[in-house]
Amino acid sequence: MSAYSAGWTSPAAEVLRVTADGFAAVDPDSTPGYQGRKLDGADDLTAGLRELGELQERLFARSAVGEANGSVLLVLQAMDSAGKGGIVRHVVGGVDPQGIELAAFKAPTAQELQHDFLWRIEKHLPKPGMIGVFDRSHYEDVLIGRVRGLASPEEIERRYDAIVEFEKRAVDSGIRVIKAMLHISRGEQKKRLMDRLDRPEKHWKFTPGDTDERLLWDDYMDAYETVFTRTSTDAAPWYVIPANRKWYARLAVQELLLAALEDIDPQWPIATYDVALEKKRLAAS
Amino acid sequence: MSAYSAGWTSPAAEVLRVTADGFAAVDPDSTPGYQGRKLDGADDLTAGLRELGELQERLFARSAVGEANGSVLLVLQAMDSAGKGGIVRHVVGGVDPQGIELAAFKAPTAQELQHDFLWRIEKHLPKPGMIGVFDRSHYEDVLIGRVRGLASPEEIERRYDAIVEFEKRAVDSGIRVIKAMLHISRGEQKKRLMDRLDRPEKHWKFTPGDTDERLLWDDYMDAYETVFTRTSTDAAPWYVIPANRKWYARLAVQELLLAALEDIDPQWPIATYDVALEKKRLAAS
Repeated sequence: MSAYSAGWTSPAAEVLRVTADGFAAVDPDSTPGYQGRKLDGADDLTAGLRELGELQERLFARSAVGEANGSVLLVLQAMDSAGKGGIVRHVVGGVDPQGIELAAFKAPTAQELQHDFLWRIEKHLPKPGMIGVFDRSHYEDVLIGRVRGLASPEEIERRYDAIVEFEKRAVDSGIRVIKAMLHISRGEQKKRLMDRLDRPEKHWKFTPGDTDERLLWDDYMDAYETVFTRTSTDAAPWYVIPANRKWYARLAVQELLLAALEDIDPQWPIATYDVALEKKRLAAS
Repeated sequence: MSAYSAGWTSPAAEVLRVTADGFAAVDPDSTPGYQGRKLDGADDLTAGLRELGELQERLFARSAVGEANGSVLLVLQAMDSAGKGGIVRHVVGGVDPQGIELAAFKAPTAQELQHDFLWRIEKHLPKPGMIGVFDRSHYEDVLIGRVRGLASPEEIERRYDAIVEFEKRAVDSGIRVIKAMLHISRGEQKKRLMDRLDRPEKHWKFTPGDTDERLLWDDYMDAYETVFTRTSTDAAPWYVIPANRKWYARLAVQELLLAALEDIDPQWPIATYDVALEKKRLAAS
């Protein structure tokens, strides 16, 4: 298994990991680490799905026979319309549903608000052998939570450290954590939201609140920068994925997933029963 | 929307619904209601996935804007190796994961055993807008439960009626329930289990218990016949799907799903905001 897939000139995990420069170092139109263009990207995505499918099945197989060796958690964060849904459909959707635990985090319920912000998150950490996917996450509690002042500045401060500790514990328990921020430009978002307003079958995807949030774009970018500074760790690094080109963002997230699974390197389990004997018993049955 | 898809000569829900003759009326090698062969089946499956995808998105869209109009629950039951996993991968797996709630029911845990057998099932009934899929189900409690004597005959008796009432309540709450038994022949099962023993990467899918269960084949068939007699209702009918040909079983289950969604006939939601005004606001943002 190579360190990175066809078409890539460097491991995605290296070129996409957030740096001290944050967003300033990332052009949303760019395709870092990948030398192909859109059509190559489609081919490579298809090839990658097959590889991802086999790695996932191996991982699942080990847990099915009680030889758990880890799981993967993909955390997806982004401004509206940046393509989280497309990642779920086209990258996660290519994997056997039996191996996926998908959790979409909306505004917390009254019951959830009575608990610490990580209470509802913990319940959705993937079991051994599974690939967990968070569509939004505990990071909303320091993003919209901060921008909209939903919690006091002291509480927001506390949360950064709580997140780092929470994620370290998850990683120590055997979960590979991939945190991906899909990064589109402000202009691209306007285009995509306008497209939703232009097409009646997309109207349900738009709410007037989307424009309200958009008006706070710079505040959100600031909040993300702080998230990167405070919570990108070696155990659970942040990746900033240029996402103006949907095909690249999908390929990049797939490549990060592949790398995590190749790192686990799950092998088919060895039978714990006597295969020859079982063949005889089955033949006689 | 037609009552049935290309290639079908009769609605799948009509030709596959279990009759008073039970298994006697169903040849596992047959392809009832479908006039094409394997290659046509592959094409029609792909075409059906696109249609299923759009119907699912419409259903999901309505629930996303609070205009819930129903959900679908697919219950999959079968003898080992009959192809439940393939249905999940190739039929369910073609749908956006955001719209799927998949639950695989294994042997109940100690905690689950302290409750009524339907307690753990109820928690997984699909929310409005979703397609729920049960990989095994409450029917295990009257199948292996009966064959292996895991509960008294009186308790098994009680369960049939409890199931009928439970499912009626689910249907009354807006859930379309599709119960599919994938029907393979005893010879086909031997072939498939032997294949698992012949291929090291499939060893994890086999346990010696599979042969033990196989030796009770006739008891299981009897238990299924009783299930059909006692629990196939107009509200939640049983379908027996000939499954020696995997391609047919997948196509047939997809066709049942399509029919249920077409029956709901979800329409794209109408915007509850002023589209022209929102375009202006967005343009100015």
